[in-house]
Order: sequence, then C-alpha cells, then structure tokens
Amino acid sequence: MVKPDAGRTFAVEPWVVREPSLDIAAMGQTESVFALSNGHIGLRGNLDEGDPHHLPGTYLNSLYEVRPLPYAEGGYGYPESGQTIINVTNGKLIRLLVDDEPFDLRYGKLRRHERVLDLRAGTLHREVEWESPAGRVVRVRSTRLVSLTQRAIAAICYEVEVLDEAALLVVQSELVANEQLPARGADDPRLEAALTNALVSEMFRADEAGATLVHTTRKSGLRVAAAMDHEVHGPEGIKITSDATEDAGSTTIIGRVQPGERLKVVKYLSYGWSSQRSLPAVYDQVRAALAAARYTGWDGLLREQADYLEDFWETADVEIDGDAELQQAVRLATFHVLQAGARAERRCISAKGLTADGYDGHTFWDTETFCLQVLSFLAPDAAADALRWRQSILPQAFERAQQLGLDGAAFPWRTIRGEECSGYWPAGTAAFHINADIADAVRRHVAATGDTNFELEVGLEILVATARLWRSLGHHDSAGEFRIDGVTGPDEYSAIVDNNVYTNLMAAHNLAAAADWSTRHRSEAAGLGVLPEEVDLWRRAAKAISIPFDSRLGVHAQDQDCLTHDVWDFEHTPMDHYPLLLHYPYFELYRKQVVKQADLVLALHLCGEHFTLEQKRAAFDYYETLTVRDSSLSACTQAVVAAEVGHMELAYDYLSEAALMDIHDLNHNTSDGVHIASLGGAVIAIIAGLGGMRELDHKVLFRPRLPEGLDRVAFHTSTRGARLRVEMRDDTASYEVMAGGPVTILHYDHETELAQGDPITLKIPAAPDLPAPTQPPGCEPKVRRMRD
Amino acid sequence: MVKPDAGRTFAVEPWVVREPSLDIAAMGQTESVFALSNGHIGLRGNLDEGDPHHLPGTYLNSLYEVRPLPYAEGGYGYPESGQTIINVTNGKLIRLLVDDEPFDLRYGKLRRHERVLDLRAGTLHREVEWESPAGRVVRVRSTRLVSLTQRAIAAICYEVEVLDEAALLVVQSELVANEQLPARGADDPRLEAALTNALVSEMFRADEAGATLVHTTRKSGLRVAAAMDHEVHGPEGIKITSDATEDAGSTTIIGRVQPGERLKVVKYLSYGWSSQRSLPAVYDQVRAALAAARYTGWDGLLREQADYLEDFWETADVEIDGDAELQQAVRLATFHVLQAGARAERRCISAKGLTADGYDGHTFWDTETFCLQVLSFLAPDAAADALRWRQSILPQAFERAQQLGLDGAAFPWRTIRGEECSGYWPAGTAAFHINADIADAVRRHVAATGDTNFELEVGLEILVATARLWRSLGHHDSAGEFRIDGVTGPDEYSAIVDNNVYTNLMAAHNLAAAADWSTRHRSEAAGLGVLPEEVDLWRRAAKAISIPFDSRLGVHAQDQDCLTHDVWDFEHTPMDHYPLLLHYPYFELYRKQVVKQADLVLALHLCGEHFTLEQKRAAFDYYETLTVRDSSLSACTQAVVAAEVGHMELAYDYLSEAALMDIHDLNHNTSDGVHIASLGGAVIAIIAGLGGMRELDHKVLFRPRLPEGLDRVAFHTSTRGARLRVEMRDDTASYEVMAGGPVTILHYDHETELAQGDPITLKIPAAPDLPAPTQPPGCEPKVRRMRD
Repeated sequence: MVKPDAGRTFAVEPWVVREPSLDIAAMGQTESVFALSNGHIGLRGNLDEGDPHHLPGTYLNSLYEVRPLPYAEGGYGYPESGQTIINVTNGKLIRLLVDDEPFDLRYGKLRRHERVLDLRAGTLHREVEWESPAGRVVRVRSTRLVSLTQRAIAAICYEVEVLDEAALLVVQSELVANEQLPARGADDPRLEAALTNALVSEMFRADEAGATLVHTTRKSGLRVAAAMDHEVHGPEGIKITSDATEDAGSTTIIGRVQPGERLKVVKYLSYGWSSQRSLPAVYDQVRAALAAARYTGWDGLLREQADYLEDFWETADVEIDGDAELQQAVRLATFHVLQAGARAERRCISAKGLTADGYDGHTFWDTETFCLQVLSFLAPDAAADALRWRQSILPQAFERAQQLGLDGAAFPWRTIRGEECSGYWPAGTAAFHINADIADAVRRHVAATGDTNFELEVGLEILVATARLWRSLGHHDSAGEFRIDGVTGPDEYSAIVDNNVYTNLMAAHNLAAAADWSTRHRSEAAGLGVLPEEVDLWRRAAKAISIPFDSRLGVHAQDQDCLTHDVWDFEHTPMDHYPLLLHYPYFELYRKQVVKQADLVLALHLCGEHFTLEQKRAAFDYYETLTVRDSSLSACTQAVVAAEVGHMELAYDYLSEAALMDIHDLNHNTSDGVHIASLGGAVIAIIAGLGGMRELDHKVLFRPRLPEGLDRVAFHTSTRGARLRVEMRDDTASYEVMAGGPVTILHYDHETELAQGDPITLKIPAAPDLPAPTQPPGCEPKVRRMRD
Repeated sequence: MVKPDAGRTFAVEPWVVREPSLDIAAMGQTESVFALSNGHIGLRGNLDEGDPHHLPGTYLNSLYEVRPLPYAEGGYGYPESGQTIINVTNGKLIRLLVDDEPFDLRYGKLRRHERVLDLRAGTLHREVEWESPAGRVVRVRSTRLVSLTQRAIAAICYEVEVLDEAALLVVQSELVANEQLPARGADDPRLEAALTNALVSEMFRADEAGATLVHTTRKSGLRVAAAMDHEVHGPEGIKITSDATEDAGSTTIIGRVQPGERLKVVKYLSYGWSSQRSLPAVYDQVRAALAAARYTGWDGLLREQADYLEDFWETADVEIDGDAELQQAVRLATFHVLQAGARAERRCISAKGLTADGYDGHTFWDTETFCLQVLSFLAPDAAADALRWRQSILPQAFERAQQLGLDGAAFPWRTIRGEECSGYWPAGTAAFHINADIADAVRRHVAATGDTNFELEVGLEILVATARLWRSLGHHDSAGEFRIDGVTGPDEYSAIVDNNVYTNLMAAHNLAAAADWSTRHRSEAAGLGVLPEEVDLWRRAAKAISIPFDSRLGVHAQDQDCLTHDVWDFEHTPMDHYPLLLHYPYFELYRKQVVKQADLVLALHLCGEHFTLEQKRAAFDYYETLTVRDSSLSACTQAVVAAEVGHMELAYDYLSEAALMDIHDLNHNTSDGVHIASLGGAVIAIIAGLGGMRELDHKVLFRPRLPEGLDRVAFHTSTRGARLRVEMRDDTASYEVMAGGPVTILHYDHETELAQGDPITLKIPAAPDLPAPTQPPGCEPKVRRMRD
C-alpha cells in the first residue's frame, strides 16, 4: 500500500488520490478533494452513510436561493438581495444496518478504510472493513461517479460482503431534501450564509425500487427534481420496498447474507432543475434521464466515463518527471478544473466549482482569468460555454451599467445568475477589471481555438459592450492621457485607486480588441450600433492609456499613488495575523504598501508586451517584498513572472504552492471547496511559466526553462486551433504539432514554422544568474526543490 | 396680526417665531422649529393633544437604545451595534374632551390657531379657538417651557375657556411610554431606524394629581423615570383623579365650566435617567425635581427662564438692520444652538439637538466645528461641558484606536455614548479629521475664554491623545514630507484619499498645539507620558505636512489626486437628482470632481494662515464651480470665505442660506430635526464672515465689511476671556470691550489696544471689485439682497 508522507492525508501516486485510512479531522478537506462533479451536478465526497461529515453537499449548478443583503448604512446602487447556492436533495445517501447495528465508523471497529479518487476512471472508490459493536464483520465497497457523458446522472455501485458470520443486512438508499446542515460561524466574512429549509415540496412519489422528489426553492422559485432507481444483485430472498414523503424518498433492501456472499446495489440518480418548465416537464425530464442511465447500465456508465477521460487526458495531461507529488497535484488540479466546467453548459463556473458552498457558490473574475485560460486549451467547448453564459447575462450587465450611470455592460463582481451580489462595493462593483478579464478570456479563446463562429456570435458582442463601459469609465485628462479613476484592481488590499496599471492595460486591450474586431466585422458591429467614430474613440483611449511609473524607484506603480504610501510594518505583524484582512481594518490595509495578491505582476504576465524585461525584473522584485499572498489567486501568477524574469527556483516554489493548495490544504480552507483558480493557475504556471508561452500577433512564443529538481515537463497547448505538444528537459525543448497547424512558433528569438509530423528540438539558453528577491518575513513560499 | 410672506409658514418678527394659522402640511417642520430643549430634555413642538402629528418626540440627551448594525459582507473593526436615540415617555400630552367631543383640530371648526415661539421668554405659546362638531366653542391657551434653570423640568400651563354655552370639560393629562410612531421609509440612508417598544416597565404609580413611570430600555439597560404633577384652578366642583399602568399615567380633571370661566391646569414634568442608579434613587430624583418645580411655581419658572435668556441675549444677540427675515432667522438659530447645549452637561450635543431623532440622535464632527465655535463665544460653560464629554469618552477612543492599530485616541465618527456607530467606514471611521476638529475646538475654546483650568484639566489630555493618533496615522515620505494617506475629508463626495489638505492642516495644528501645550505644561504632560522626544516628532510632522498644490490650475488640491479627476457632468444632471448621493453610486461621486460641502474652503477659513489672499481667491473661485451643497454644513463656510476674499454679495447669500435652513425648510428635511451646525454656522458667518474675525497669536483680527442690503450688524464675541462688541455699518466698524480685557485687536492692518469703556470706530476699506465666481448650474445660492 502506498502511504502518504507524514502529516499528509493522501498518498503520492501518479494517477490516483488515495486516502489510505480515514482521517476524520481532515474530513472537510477530503470531502472537497473527493468531490465529484460534471459542472452540472456536484457531490461532495461525503461518506455513503452520511455521518460523520464536515459538510453534506449536493449541488446543482446555478440552483440558488436569494437572501437579503443588509447594510448598516445603505446607499444608491447597493444590491438588495444576494444569491446563494444551496444544498439540494441528497441522493448519495446509502445507509446500512448490519444485524440491527447502524454502519457508523465512529462505533465498532474500523479495520480498514480506503478511498481512492481515480483521475482516469472518473470515480471515487471506497473500501471499508468494519466490525460492528456486536462483532459482525462486513466489507463495504462503493464506487461513485458523476457522469461526464450523461449530464443529469450520478450513480453509485454499493456492495456489502459479510465476512465471518451471516447477517441480516438492511440497505436504505435515500433522497433527502432540506438536510440539516452544521452551524458555521460567520466571523470570517468569506464564509457564506448557510441557508436551511430552502426547498418547498411540490410532489413526491415512490416506485418499486426508487423515488422522485420535486421541490421549488422558497424565494427564488426554482423547480428542482431528484429521482433514483436501483438495481439489486444478491442472494435469494431479498426484499425491496420504497416509500416517499415531502422531503424524503427511500428504497429499502433487506436480505440475509451468508459469509462470502455479496449484496450489490447500483443506485442511479438523476437531477434536473428549471426556472420555467412545468412540474410534469421537470418530472419527466429526470425520469427520462434515469431511464437512459439504467439502459446504459453501471458498466456502461463506467466505460463512457473512462473513454471521456481518456480523450481528455490525451490533450490535457501535464507530465512531470522529478517531483511525483507535483505530478499528482497537477493532475488533480486539471481534473477539478475539468469537473468545474465540463458540462456547465451556459451556466456559471463558480470559484469553488461544485465542491462546496464557499463564497456562496459565486463566480468571480478568476473564472475567466485562471480557469478559462486553461479550459480554452484543454476543454475548449467548456470554455466557450462559460463565455456564452457571460453573453447570456449581458441584459443584467447592461442594466447594472445603466444604474451606475455608465455605458455598455458592467458585469457583476460576484453572481450566480447575473445580478450583482457584492455587498461591499469598494472590493466588489469597483473592481471593474472583471469586464476586461472577460473580454480578455474571449480574445484568448479565439487565439487558442481560431473559432471564428464564436468570435462573431459571442465574442464581438462582449467586446463591444465592455469597450463601451471602459470608454465611459475613463476620461482623457488635460494632457490627453486616458485615465481610469477610483476603481479597484485585483489586489484587494488596495481599493478605489486611480490608474491601476492592471486595470488600465487590460482596459486598453479590451478597447483595442473591440476596435479591431469591429473593423474586421464591420457589418456585424454596425448591427450593434458601432460607428467608425466610436471605434476611433476606443483606439484613441487605448493608445493614450495612463501607465504610472515611479522613476525614483524605477518601477511601475500598481496604481498612481501606492508607491508614496507607507510600507506595511511586516516586521511587527505576528504570523497568526495572516490573512491580514481578518486582523486589520480595510482602511489600514488600503493606505499602506501591502499586496494581497499579484496585481501589477499579473499585468506583467497578461499585458507583458508593455514592459521591457528589465522593467519586469524590477517590478517583480519590488512587489515580491510587499506581497503576502492572502489570496490563493497569487502564487500561480508569481510563478509565471518569476520564470519569465529568471527566478526559476522561485517559480517552482510558487507553481508548487498553486498546485498543492488543496491536496495539502495550504490555506486551511479546502473544506469550503477546492480553489479552482489556484488549480487552474497551476496549469498556467506550467504552460505560461515553465513553458513561457505567450500569444503574439500571428505567432506563439515559448521561452521554456526548467528549475532544478524537475527533469522533464511535457504539456499540450493550442494556438489558432492547432494543438501543440511541448516537452522540456534540462537544456532542450521539443515542439510537435499534434493536430491542425502549421503554426509559427518563436522559441526565444528563434522563429520556426511547424507542421504535423515534423517535431523539432531546440536548445534552451542558459538561465541568468540573478539575486533572489525577498518576500515579507514569514510570507516566503515553501522551498520546493525536492526529489522523490 | 403679522402674517408670513406668501409660501412661508412663519411671520417675520424680530423676537418671536409666529405661526399665525395651523399648517398641517408643514407640521414636520413646525414640530422641529418649535421644539423646546435645555440640552437635557427635548420636547418636539407637538400639539398638546398629540394628534395630528408628523412625529411625536420626547427625548432625553443620550438616552439611547442599541440596534444591530448589519453588513452584507462584514470586515475587521466594523461596529456590530449602533446607538439610537429613542422617543421616551411623552409627558406633554394633554387631551381635552368638550361635552364628549374630543378636542381634535381635524374635526369641528378651527376658528383660530396661533403658535408663538418666544425667544426671550423661552416659551412656546399657543392659542386656539375651536368649535366642536356639536357646536361648543372653546378657547385653549397653552404655554410650554423646558426649563433652562431647572434641568430636569418641563412645564405646561393649559387653560380652557368656554365661549358661548357651558360645557363639561374633561382634561386628561398624560404620561405615555412606548408611543406608537409613524412608519417611515428607509429609502433615504440618512433616516434613522425607528425603534418601537424600547421601554420595559419597572414601576408605575399614581398620586392624587400626578403619576410616575419608571422604565428601562430593553437592550441598552438604561433606567428612565418620568413624573408629573398638576395644579388646577377653575370653578368649583372640579374633580381630579389619577391612575397609572405600565406604560401610561393619567390625571383626569373634570368640571362644568360656564361661559367666561376658565379651567387652568399647570402641569409640571420631571425627567431623569441613569445607567447606574437604582430604581428608588432614580424615582426619588424625579420626585425631588418635581417638588422643587412646584415650589418654584409656574410664574417662578417663567421668570427664571426669562432671566436666564436675558443674560444670554445680552452677550449672544446679533443685531441686523436691513433684513428683518435674516434678523429673525439668526436669533432663532442662536436660540436653537443654545437649546442644544445649554444644560447638556457632559453629554453629547447631537446634530439635530433634541428636536427630532434624525441621524439616530448622533453627534458628529460638526458639533465641535460649527456649534462649539459659537458656544465658546456665547455660552462658554456649555462649550466646556461638551468638550469635557469628549474627554469622558477617551477610554472608548483609546480602545478604538487600538482596535484600528493606531496610537492615541480615535474618536467615533458618530456616536451617542462614545462607541463608534458608523456602519460605513469610508465616510465614517476614515474621516479621522474629527479628531483634529475636537482638538481645534479645545484650542479655540481656550483662545476665546482664556480658561487655563480647562486647558490643563481637559484640553491637554485631548490634544496629546489626538496628536498621538496623527503621528501614527501619517508618515514621512522619502522626501521628508509628512503624508496622511487613505482618509476622508469633510467632503463626503470623495473618500479614502491621500493628503486631504483640510485633514493635513488640521492635523498639523493639532500636532503643533499638543507640542506647545506639552512644553508649556511640562509636568502635566509628563504625567500623560509625553517625553521631549515625542514632542519633537510632533513638531517635525507638523512642519513637514504635505499640502498639495496644483501648479497647472494654480489652486490647492482638496486632496492630492482630485484635480486630475474628471469634472462631474453638471450639465446633464437633472435638478431632481440632487442630493446626488440619492441618485448616483458612491464610486461615481468619489472619482469625479464634485464637492458635497466645503472642504478645502473650510481649510481656507480654519487654517487660513497657510494661504495667501491670492491663493484663497483662486481656490474659492475654483471650488465654487464644483460645490453642490448637498450638505447643510457648507453654506456658512462658503459665506466666511466669500467675505474674506471679497465676494460680499455671495457671502450674504450663503449666510442667509445657513440661517434660513430651518425657518424656511430649505432642505425639506427640517422635520428630521433642525440643523444645529447650519444654525451655528449662520452665527459664524456673521462673526468670522462679515466680521472677519480670526484669532492670531496674542491678538485678534477683524476684517469687517457689510454686503449691500445690510445697514448695520452688531455682534458679541470673546477673546482670552474678554468680551467684545463689534458693530458694523456701511463704512465703519466700532469695537468695544464689554468685559475683561484689555485686548489687542487688528482692524485690517491697523493694530489697537482696547480697554473697557474706550470704544473705537474705524474706517472699513473699500471692497475689491471682483468678478463673481460661478456655481454648478442650479446650485447657485438664492440671491438675497432684499430690503424689508
């Protein structure tokens, strides 16, 4: 058996995440890491029998309840209600009675407990050997999947074997609505409001071997149906009954099982919801999906799942030699990013995927910036759908812009269904960069896929709507510079600043791209009311964008004023006062030089063409001294830029932090859900960091380089619809076009045209010898450079 | 009878405010304007019989209830609960039954209704002639006072005369706790949370001709007692009974009254509250006060009141010839400022005095800046007590500073009892200037009174505590300048700015004064832990303070960045979108050049020595183009600076606006309480504006000048304990020392030493001829220049 390192929950293996024995203290983390999702349904990795748990969780993408957003002092334009993802009908519950003793791991004797998340099979497998307090010994094996091929379906194969003496087994397979949730403290502003009893029963029905429950949410009025059906295999004389009440459906399977015999139950689960469809329609929808799943059968579902993932990994796998822990972590990261988006299909991809209800299940800018950046390469259909969802909420974004007195579209800082749900505007609505982030994701998606249909049908409208926002948000000052005042950049330890460089450069990209696309698609743009004069205004603003530079320090200023502020007193900040936002008031954080997360440094990555390498080095080193990484959206960007400027060991450290975020529970909050952006960021740190990939006009640049400790790293990426495989070794990099092409690549300064079947291997220039930058005391990343 | 001008509620008379006929639509305003208070008790000008009303109101200074302050997204250091002044036991209720018909002005026929607030008598008098629906005619006269000499006492003389036929009269005089309050919309963030049923009965007792009710507030646990007693005069056969229940005490007086006879009831009311004293102690306290009032008698109370006010007006009266409306308004203003503070005695003076519960009854910076600036001249004991109250809440201010990670004291932005009650920190806690405002009020008080005891016992501690705050809030930048970043100045249409000039200069004053006083009182300062090294740091910071100046525009910048921002689009702002905060989001207001209220212009007044006259002119003219006066704290300051730079007609306009704020209900919210700061500001506009008074080192400067339309203005002021009378005419100004002295005065450039009995008359130099500044369209003040 592979064992985890001391202090770790999971064993290190290349393709599975194994918990070799039950760690109840780590249950919050394991429930999130073992969560299964297809982007539509999310099942936390709760035990089959429900108890013990940290947080029971069954989610359907965008199924939310509304809650009031209260203010001690209100103000114009403050959203009055928020949206919170809710725990829906729990269908993963299978309780077991062994000769009258409930199967509960906290009682009796747990002889063995192992759970394995298989990243190629797409299943969570569990094996338990348990001795009941009365001395009966059973072996329980369960395998759970949330189908990537049948969107409405999850299924569980549950098998009980009696080991020593015969026993009467009672399997209760359930659907439970309005589950009781643990009380959670509200001291941490990042924790969501837990909502209970949000589901109002509309109908319930029991069948021979299953049940269906239909509810509507109390305030948001969404109709949700859950249905289950079962196949039972076992010794003769097994009795199956089902019943249902408002909030519970139950199928009971009773049989006497002899030693060596097995009772096997396959549970098919189907979910559906709608804000519009009638009760019979939603009912029929889940019953039909259930029928299809039964028709496919358990083995069929397993096979479909494995086939789907085989295809996925063929293009998505990142191979890493020299750091087995990182190899596993990056694969888990890739898997969770896929799970978050695979079948979301024009619904949002939230910050925690569907692994818990942290951040109220909201989506933020990080979905576009970190998650879609990866999905556009590895699962482009999912990325396109996520951006189509953005297009679908343009009406709300237009309305919000109008309410704020602005033109175009103002996308919400946080939302589930399109309405602004941010109750603190200085770090919410004022963070207008989300609009440029969405526009940039559109541009990147087209650059990666070459999807001209998407460009015309989706991209152009988003680019035009956001460009209009920027034009109305900024103004040309008396010297002609285009300024954007009073907004908040990515770094949430400053707010309401003038000329945030990241925001300004991203806005300039947005404006320039809208101008280019509108020129390229003149008639379609005209259909959106775009006249040449407007395009000229966009171009003029983009060209004149203000980029504050501090000549005294020789670095770009994150915003116009920040570098004149006092530097945070890191020396006297106790380590237990991180994250700072829980121990210091915002006003103090805002008026000091202290950076929560990469901001100017993110501009160095995403808008790198505006900086010389020397400027990047100076800026990276400067902001390193200020960045505390109280956000999980930071390390991956620091990895990318560290690699670019030549701090390869540091890049390795940050890449590892991003990748290990959840598998090592680095921020002690994986229980609130996995950090999709950080996990996506780990892949970005490899492709854009170690691989040094940047899209240029009509070609793609790579500046690959490995840190010491990594022997080989290979990844896939795509550009203009062509798929490339890049493999880095100590001093060479190989490039191969796997599909599409040819493409023009730049390897450092060396330009080559590359076609399929014609791989090329090129020398990597020697790394520069640079003094290592420093971080605030205690905020240094863990030094990685390990060998397995 | 004197009639008000068309569209006005009140007649114009020099010493009274008369409402010649009942205007039910204006009842919210009249209840506030006719409110009587001694700073401890406040009675809104409700009708004796209670109905109809806009808002019943009976207040005791600092008697508050707590309420939760909710946040959509919480944060470190956010106050969790607020304090709200509550409507306490209403003792001004006297209901009348005339032959079974309730005396209600909405029924029957109102033949005559007049109310008169007499500013010399300190009474509200009312005369009504009413014909009941059944045809009985009565004349009711009532006179109400809140005693300025007996702090716990209010009294009402209520007289009913039967005019045509005999009638059976029933007078019910009541004490009512937990009165039902009208529902008020919460759309306007400035409106307070109405609290109902906040009083829990502790005891009730009826006497022969009176009753006592004792309650405690439900959450804040404050004990409050109200007691009443009555004297009855009338025809024979009158019967008096009293009873009491938990929330009501009632004395019923019944008698048959013949035409020409009168039934006269004198009601004595006594109030007391305590957070500490026992039930018997508080009970005894109100009974004793009641006994003293009865002993004094109605005529005695009237006499004491008139004597008190005679003394007051002797030093406080501002005489104005040429504008009778302004004369009356300034007297009413002075009267309300006195009422707010007279007997507050180490409790806060709130923004609305005790005239309504607007702003939750909180005190803000404007008490020190506008109200105390006047009280230090006109009622110095009240000013001293208000600052002693600030000293008494230093423990809470120290704790708040510590919570915020700062040294010294951080006074709350809004409070009743010392705890921060501001639920929106960008325009609350971040407005640290309140600390310098308090320190400046301390300095001004000592300058006016020469009270060295106060300086030592109260002033030094406040100055040291606030200087320490500033030293920790600011920092010396690399060029040595002392910067204060990320704070909010007086103008609430910008927030979280760097180097707000007002804040910086006031902080520099604060630091320099703390240094001077600590040097002067070395051993007392040492007792506060002040070492010479700390004093040096204060001086260094004060000297190096950053004062941003925009050389392109040639004006001082309100804050470092504001002048680079886009100018608000005044042209496209509809007039019904003022006040802007109700129609535009904060982020939009903050990032544009638009000024809610004098900020840099307030610095021109209070820190005038830092600016040349030319700089003042340029700055005043510039900020005039941006200032919308959405705050009532603006016009008076604009008047002062307009006068100084030479725009006398504009000064007159702004002075009038400040003075007429409530008597003309200019902001349509006098119903929420009178604007104490604006009313105080009217007096400042005369003394510091028309009189041009400024305290200099060891002398006092006057630059008097009258606008066209005013023939003569005379006022009193004081400096270093000496009282001066200043009288301005068209081209001369006379100065006379009335008490104390001698004093050195500067009349423009002319210096004179002035002693008692030796008045002097000096020539006023000709006014400069300047182009008038412009205001945003629609925000121009009403042109005053009228003659009566």
